[in-house]
Amino acid sequence: MITPDNVIVSCLGPREVRSPLKLATSPGQGIMKFLPDEARVRYQVEWVPGVEPKDDILFEKAGPREQIYFNPIDTRAAIVTCGGLCPGLNNVIRSLVLELYENYRVKDILGIQFGYQGLNPAFGHPPVHLNPMIVEDIHYNGGTLLGSSRGAQDPAAIVEYLEREQINLLFCVGGDGTQRGAHAIHEEARRQGYKIAVVGIPKTIDNDINYVWKTFGLATALEKTKEVIICAHVEAKGAPNGIGLVKVMGRDAGFIAAGATVASQEVNYTLIPEVPFELDGKSGFLNHLKTRLQSKGHAVIVVAEGAGMHLPDADRTERDASGNMRYADIGIYLQERIRAYFKSIGMVANLKYFDPSYTIRSVPANTEDSLLCDNFARYAVHAAMAGKTDMLVGYWHGVFVHVPIPLAVSGKKQISPESALWMGVLAATRQPVRFV
Amino acid sequence: MITPDNVIVSCLGPREVRSPLKLATSPGQGIMKFLPDEARVRYQVEWVPGVEPKDDILFEKAGPREQIYFNPIDTRAAIVTCGGLCPGLNNVIRSLVLELYENYRVKDILGIQFGYQGLNPAFGHPPVHLNPMIVEDIHYNGGTLLGSSRGAQDPAAIVEYLEREQINLLFCVGGDGTQRGAHAIHEEARRQGYKIAVVGIPKTIDNDINYVWKTFGLATALEKTKEVIICAHVEAKGAPNGIGLVKVMGRDAGFIAAGATVASQEVNYTLIPEVPFELDGKSGFLNHLKTRLQSKGHAVIVVAEGAGMHLPDADRTERDASGNMRYADIGIYLQERIRAYFKSIGMVANLKYFDPSYTIRSVPANTEDSLLCDNFARYAVHAAMAGKTDMLVGYWHGVFVHVPIPLAVSGKKQISPESALWMGVLAATRQPVRFV
Amino acid sequence: MITPDNVIVSCLGPREVRSPLKLATSPGQGIMKFLPDEARVRYQVEWVPGVEPKDDILFEKAGPREQIYFNPIDTRAAIVTCGGLCPGLNNVIRSLVLELYENYRVKDILGIQFGYQGLNPAFGHPPVHLNPMIVEDIHYNGGTLLGSSRGAQDPAAIVEYLEREQINLLFCVGGDGTQRGAHAIHEEARRQGYKIAVVGIPKTIDNDINYVWKTFGLATALEKTKEVIICAHVEAKGAPNGIGLVKVMGRDAGFIAAGATVASQEVNYTLIPEVPFELDGKSGFLNHLKTRLQSKGHAVIVVAEGAGMHLPDADRTERDASGNMRYADIGIYLQERIRAYFKSIGMVANLKYFDPSYTIRSVPANTEDSLLCDNFARYAVHAAMAGKTDMLVGYWHGVFVHVPIPLAVSGKKQISPESALWMGVLAATRQPVRFV
Amino acid sequence: MITPDNVIVSCLGPREVRSPLKLATSPGQGIMKFLPDEARVRYQVEWVPGVEPKDDILFEKAGPREQIYFNPIDTRAAIVTCGGLCPGLNNVIRSLVLELYENYRVKDILGIQFGYQGLNPAFGHPPVHLNPMIVEDIHYNGGTLLGSSRGAQDPAAIVEYLEREQINLLFCVGGDGTQRGAHAIHEEARRQGYKIAVVGIPKTIDNDINYVWKTFGLATALEKTKEVIICAHVEAKGAPNGIGLVKVMGRDAGFIAAGATVASQEVNYTLIPEVPFELDGKSGFLNHLKTRLQSKGHAVIVVAEGAGMHLPDADRTERDASGNMRYADIGIYLQERIRAYFKSIGMVANLKYFDPSYTIRSVPANTEDSLLCDNFARYAVHAAMAGKTDMLVGYWHGVFVHVPIPLAVSGKKQISPESALWMGVLAATRQPVRFV
Repeated sequence: MITPDNVIVSCLGPREVRSPLKLATSPGQGIMKFLPDEARVRYQVEWVPGVEPKDDILFEKAGPREQIYFNPIDTRAAIVTCGGLCPGLNNVIRSLVLELYENYRVKDILGIQFGYQGLNPAFGHPPVHLNPMIVEDIHYNGGTLLGSSRGAQDPAAIVEYLEREQINLLFCVGGDGTQRGAHAIHEEARRQGYKIAVVGIPKTIDNDINYVWKTFGLATALEKTKEVIICAHVEAKGAPNGIGLVKVMGRDAGFIAAGATVASQEVNYTLIPEVPFELDGKSGFLNHLKTRLQSKGHAVIVVAEGAGMHLPDADRTERDASGNMRYADIGIYLQERIRAYFKSIGMVANLKYFDPSYTIRSVPANTEDSLLCDNFARYAVHAAMAGKTDMLVGYWHGVFVHVPIPLAVSGKKQISPESALWMGVLAATRQPVRFV
Repeated sequence: MITPDNVIVSCLGPREVRSPLKLATSPGQGIMKFLPDEARVRYQVEWVPGVEPKDDILFEKAGPREQIYFNPIDTRAAIVTCGGLCPGLNNVIRSLVLELYENYRVKDILGIQFGYQGLNPAFGHPPVHLNPMIVEDIHYNGGTLLGSSRGAQDPAAIVEYLEREQINLLFCVGGDGTQRGAHAIHEEARRQGYKIAVVGIPKTIDNDINYVWKTFGLATALEKTKEVIICAHVEAKGAPNGIGLVKVMGRDAGFIAAGATVASQEVNYTLIPEVPFELDGKSGFLNHLKTRLQSKGHAVIVVAEGAGMHLPDADRTERDASGNMRYADIGIYLQERIRAYFKSIGMVANLKYFDPSYTIRSVPANTEDSLLCDNFARYAVHAAMAGKTDMLVGYWHGVFVHVPIPLAVSGKKQISPESALWMGVLAATRQPVRFV
Repeated sequence: MITPDNVIVSCLGPREVRSPLKLATSPGQGIMKFLPDEARVRYQVEWVPGVEPKDDILFEKAGPREQIYFNPIDTRAAIVTCGGLCPGLNNVIRSLVLELYENYRVKDILGIQFGYQGLNPAFGHPPVHLNPMIVEDIHYNGGTLLGSSRGAQDPAAIVEYLEREQINLLFCVGGDGTQRGAHAIHEEARRQGYKIAVVGIPKTIDNDINYVWKTFGLATALEKTKEVIICAHVEAKGAPNGIGLVKVMGRDAGFIAAGATVASQEVNYTLIPEVPFELDGKSGFLNHLKTRLQSKGHAVIVVAEGAGMHLPDADRTERDASGNMRYADIGIYLQERIRAYFKSIGMVANLKYFDPSYTIRSVPANTEDSLLCDNFARYAVHAAMAGKTDMLVGYWHGVFVHVPIPLAVSGKKQISPESALWMGVLAATRQPVRFV
Repeated sequence: MITPDNVIVSCLGPREVRSPLKLATSPGQGIMKFLPDEARVRYQVEWVPGVEPKDDILFEKAGPREQIYFNPIDTRAAIVTCGGLCPGLNNVIRSLVLELYENYRVKDILGIQFGYQGLNPAFGHPPVHLNPMIVEDIHYNGGTLLGSSRGAQDPAAIVEYLEREQINLLFCVGGDGTQRGAHAIHEEARRQGYKIAVVGIPKTIDNDINYVWKTFGLATALEKTKEVIICAHVEAKGAPNGIGLVKVMGRDAGFIAAGATVASQEVNYTLIPEVPFELDGKSGFLNHLKTRLQSKGHAVIVVAEGAGMHLPDADRTERDASGNMRYADIGIYLQERIRAYFKSIGMVANLKYFDPSYTIRSVPANTEDSLLCDNFARYAVHAAMAGKTDMLVGYWHGVFVHVPIPLAVSGKKQISPESALWMGVLAATRQPVRFV
C-alpha cells in the first residue's frame, strides 16, 4: 500500500557537482530548465465522490538536476539486462550509453553480459566496454546486445565485484525479480558503505509492475499479438466450426490478452488470470462456446498463460510424479479440454492452436516503445547521476517519476475486472461477465 | 486560458432514462460501475515549487452514466468524418456503431458521406445506414468508409437537415475546424430549440488539439514516418555527402517531426514551427550542415510543413503575382536553398527529398491507435446518450474526459521548446539549441 | 515419369465458339494475340553433356484461345477451395471471378463452401453466388472467402450435384489430394457423359506439386518464416548457449525450410525430409550441435515437419497404443532429444521452441504471390473455357502450361540433395553434408 | 540481336587450379556436382507454330567449376556498387564475401567505396577490407555498406589502380551504365595484358537489363509500390471525385508500374514508356478519366517516370531556356494537366500525388530478393574464380547463366504491349488498349 512516506526515494548524499548538461536555470531561455528536486507528481489524478483523494501522496518527478552527486570524469557506469527478452532492450542500452557518454560525459561504461550472471565472476562472462559507436545501430535489432539470464545471484559476490571494478552507477533493466535483486545489491552495498547508485528500469512485457503505467515492450507485443489474433480469426472462419485458440504471455496479469483483444476486435473470449472462470456446467465456458459455434460457426479465444490456475488439473505441475507437465500450460490444457468436449458431444470442431510467445518478444521495438525506452533510459541516467538509488523509473499519469524499489515490488499490477479496460474487453468480445 | 468555469460541459437537460448498459451500481460486482456525473480529473498533475497548482480546475470524467437523456428506442444517431484522412477513422466509425447498436440498442444510425458536405442537401450525398455487419471489417482499411471533405457548411442548412431527418446524436470526427463547425451547429440548434447532442471526436494527425494529450492516428503516423526517416538515413549514407531531407505533416505543431526523431534516433536536424531558425550566417543552419557533412559525410533533416514560416521567401504564397507557389512548401524551399548553397560554395552534396505525407495518413491504424479509437468512440457514445453536447472527448493524464468545444478550439497545442519532449529531440539530434 | 505421351491434355470436344476476348489475331495490333493450341513449352531447358536432352517432351502452353468450347451465356462456373489455408486463396478466387465475369462474360458463378464438403449435399453447405462486387476486397484478407475442408467426397455424389446444378466449369484449388479428387470427378463425369471442364489450380504451401515450378503461397510463407527465424536467432543469442529451434511446414519436401534458410542467412542447421540424419554418435547432429555451442555460444535449427521420419521413435504414432502422439511431431521430438542430451552431458543449454505454422499460412499474399495467383487463375479460366479438362495449370521455366492431372499427381516434387538449392543451404548454414 | 556467336563468354585462360569446393565429381554422392563448362541453357524455351525456334542459341550455364583459373591463396578480390540504391545490395556484398572467404578461401577482399569513384584515386575514397564478421549483419539494412555514386570514370586510371593494388577479381554491381564501365575496364586491362576477371552483377530496380529475367530489388520494389498504391486507392475513395496519382520508377521500362498494378489490383490506369498515349481528344486519357469519375467517383493512376516522353511539353527539359524543369517530370506534368483539365470543364476533382521513389529502393531486400541476391553473388564468384570475364550473371528461364556484357548492354529489356504481362495489366485496370 502506497503511503506519503514510502514514496520517498533514497539518495547517496548531498549533490555537490554542477551538472554538465547545458539546460536553462530560468524560463525563457528556449530550452528546458533543470528540474528542482522538490518537483512532484500526484499519485491520484481522479476525483470521484466517496473516494478518499489521497492528495498527500506525491511521487518525485524524474528529470535532470542542476547539482549532481557523481563527478562524470571519475564515474564508471554498468548496465545489466535480466530476465526474458522484451522489445526495446537495445533501445534502452543505447540511450543509456548516449546520455551518459554524450551529455554527462561519462565515458567509462561497462556492459554486463548475460544478466546478473555477468556480475558474478563465477560465471566467467567478462563485461564489454560500451560507447556510442558500438551501440549506434543496435536499436534495429530485437533482443539485447548484452545477453540476459534468469535468476538471482549472491548480493555479496556482486557487491564485491562492483567494488573491485569501481562501478559507481548500476542500471538494472528487468522485471520485479530483477528489481528485487537490485534492491538486495543496494542493501548489501549500503551495509558495506560502498556508494553506488542502483537504478532500475522496469522491463516486463506483461506490464505488471506497480506504479509504471506502461512498460516498454507492451505496445510492440500488442502489435504482434494482434497479427496472430487476425490469423486465428482467419483460420477459425476457414473451416466448419473453426476455433482459433491463442495463448499469450501474462503470468499474473492479462494486459497483453486484454489489449490485443480491444485492438484487434476479433476475439470472442478473453481469459485472464484476474478473472476466474468455469469450464463445465450450463454457464461454463465450454457450453457457451458450443452455443456460439452453433450460431456463428467460428470462435476466437485468447488465453493468458496465467489464466485458469484455479481450475482443477490446470496446475498439476507439482503433483504429477510421472513428469507429465502438459497440464501446466493453460493453452495446451484448454486445447485438450475443448477437443475432448466437442468429441464427447459428437460435434465436429476444428481447433487451431497458436502459441506465439517468443516471436512477440524478440522483435525490435515499435515507435511507441522506442519513445518509452529513450525516456526510461535518459531519466534513469539523470536519477543515477543525481545520486538517487534503490529506485526505479516509473511512469505515472504520463509523467516519468522516481519510485522506491521496495514500493514498486510490494505487489503486482493487475487488471481489475471493474476497470474501464476490462469493460472495453467485454464490449469487444461480448462474452458474459462470468462463466460460472 | 482554462479556468474553473470554462471547463463546464453543456447538457441538454435532466437525464430521466435508465441506461440499458448492464454495469454495476456498487463495487464488488465484478464489472465496472456506472460513473457518477460528479467524477472529475485534475487539470494539473504536477507540482513544481513556484508554480501555481490550479487545483480548482477539474475536467468532467468520461464514462457511462446510469441515467441517460435519450431513450434508445427513439434515438437516431449520425456520424460524420471531416478533413484529411487519418489512421483510425474506420475504427472510430466501427466502435461508434457497435457501442450504439449492441450496448445502447440504438439501431438507427446514419453515416453521413463526404464530411459536412453530406449534411448539406445541396451536395446531394445521401446518408448510408450503418449497422454492425456493414462495419465488421472496416478497421482493416485505411481511410474512412464515409468519405470526407474539407471546409465548413452553413449551420442553418445543416440544422434544418438534422431536424428534418430527426437526428438526435451527431458525432463529428475531425480537427479544430470540424469542431468549430460542430460548435456552430450546436449553437444554431440551441437557437432553434432543437435538442441534439453534438459530440466531437478529436482527429488531427498533427496532434495539435488542446486538452487532448494524444489524438488517434499520431502513433501510426510516427511508425510510418520512422520508416521513411530510416530510408532517408540509408540514402544519405549511400552517396558522398548525402543529405536526406524529409518533409512531414505539422502545420502548427511539430509533434510528428519530434516524435519520429526521438523514435528513429537517426535525425540530425529537426525543424518545427515552434522553433524559429536562420538559414544563413555563421550560426545559421546551412553553415552547420556544411560542417557536419565535412566531418560525418552525411546528414538527415526532418522538417515539419509549418516550420520556417518566418523565413523571407518561405511564405511568399500570397505575394507572388505570377502564381509561383513553390516557396510556399517549406520542403521544396529548403531543398532549393540547400542545393543552391552547396553549389555556391563549390561543394558536392547529394540531396534526396522525401515527401511521404499521404502514405502516412491513409494506412490502417496500428494497435496503439486502435485502442485509442475504440475508447474515443465509446466514450463519445456514453456522453451523447447522457445528453452532453457542444463537447469533445478529451484525453488527459491518461484518462478520458469531457472538454467543452469552445475551450478545446480556443488555441492550438504546440511543443514548448522548454519541454522535456524537445529536450529529447535535442538529445537525439545533437543539433544546437538555436540557429541564429 | 514424364513422356511425350502423358503430357497430352484432355479436351471436351471441338471448340466452335468465338472467344469474347478482344485480343489480336495477328502481330502488330498493340495487344496480345490469341494463343494457337499448338504452342508448346519445352520440358527441358538445360543441356548438360552426357544427359539425354528429351527434346520431344513438350507441355501445352497456357493462354487464351480464339475458339472456345463453352458459350459464355449458357455457362455456369463453380469454384472450390480445399485443404489447409494458403496465402493467396482469395486472390485466386477473385481473379477467377473477374476473368470469368468481366472478360468472358460468364456471369453465373458459384462459390462452393468448405471444400469438397460443399459439393456433397449431405453436408448442407449451400453455394454462394459470386460476382465482382462480392470479391472486390477479398485479396486484402488471408484465408478463403469460401472456407475449406480436408478429405475426399464420393465422386458419384459430387457429379450428381454438379449435373443437377448444371455446372459446366469446376475450378478445384488445392494440393495433390484435391487434384486426385478433381481427377476422380472428371472420370466419373466422363463415365456419365456429363461435359464438364475440371481444371485444377495447384495450391500447396509446401511447393511439392510436380511440374509446378513455384506454387502460390510459398513466397509469402518464406517471408513469414524468415521473420520467425530472425526471432529464433535473437533468442538464441540472448541467453548463454541459446538454441532457437523452428519447426516449419513441409511434410514431404523441405522447400520452406531450405528457402527460408537461404533467405534469412541465420540458420545453422536445416533438416528436411529429403536428407536423412542421425542424432547420436560422434558425427551425429547432437554432437555437432554441442561443438558449435562450445565455440559460438548459440545455434539456430530449422526442421521441416516431415524430416527425421527415419529416426527410431520419431514415427511412433501408429505403434504407441497409449495414444501418446508427442513423438509424431519432429519439432517436439527434437526439442526433447536436445534437452535430454545436454542434460545428460551436464551442459546448460537454453532452448526456445518455435512452431509458427498457422501464422504463416493465414496471412494475405505478398506481391510475388499476388502476381502468381492472378496468373494461375486467369490461365485456368482460359483453359476451362477452351474445354480443357482433367488438367491443372502448371508453371515451368517461367511459363504457364497445362499439365494433365494424372501426370501432376504421379509423384511429389522434392529437393534433391544434389541440387543447387541444397548447395545454397549448405553454403548458408555451413552444416556438414551429412550427420552419420 | 542475340546470335549463336555473341553469347560466347570470354575467359582469361586455361583453368589449372583445382577448386577448393568440396563438391561431387559423380552423381550419388549426396551433394551437387561440379558443373562441366559445356553445360548450356536454351535461349528459347517456347515453341509456337510459325516462329523460328532458334535452338542453336545457348547460354553458358552458371555454376562451380572443378578446375579454376585463380589460385585462392594469391587472389585479391574487389567489390564495387554503382548507381542508385536498390534493395539487396548488401545481400550481394555479403554473399560475395562469404562465398569468396569461406568456400574459396580467398581472404583478401576489398570493398571499393562510392562506386567507380572509389576506383579512381583522384577522389580519395580508400577501400575497406571485408571479411565475414564485417558483413555479418548488413543484409538487415537497406542501401549499400560501400556507398555508391553515379557516372563513369576513366578506364585507364582504374586499370592503373587495379594493377597497382594487384586486384584479380572485380565484381561490378550495377545497371547497364555500370556494366558498360565494366566492359571498358575489361578492354583496357586486356589491352595492357593485365589478367583480371571483371564480372558484373546486374542491378536495376527497373528490371530492364537484357537476358536477366528478373533482377534483384524488383520484388521488394513491387511490395513497397503496392503499399503506396493501396494508399492512393484509399485517398481516392476518401474524397468526392478523388484521384490518386502515383509516379514510380521506370525510365525505359514499365516493369514496376505493370507488376504493382497486377499485384495490387487497385489501379485504373497504368501508363508506361512502352505504350504511348494521348491526353487530349475524345479518346484521350483525360476524357476517359472524366467519364470514369462520373460513373465511379474515384480513380487510381500509376505512371512510370519514363512514360509520356512523346507528349508535347513533357520533355521540354533541354528546350526551356529559363531553367523551368517541371515538365521534365511526367508525374508533375500529369498532375498539372489533370488539374487544369478538370478546372477547365468546371468539375471538382481531388487529386493526391504520390512520389515514393526513394522509400521504395532504400529498404532491405524481401525474401524473394534475398534469394536472388545470394544466387547472383555466389554464381558471380564461381564465374570469376574460373577466369570468366567481361560477363555478367544472367537469369534465364529460372536458371543462372553467363552473359557477355556487350550482349547484355546492346539493348534494354522492355514490356511488349503484346505480351502476357501487359494483357494482365489490361485485365486488372480495364483501361482501353490505347488512348488516341
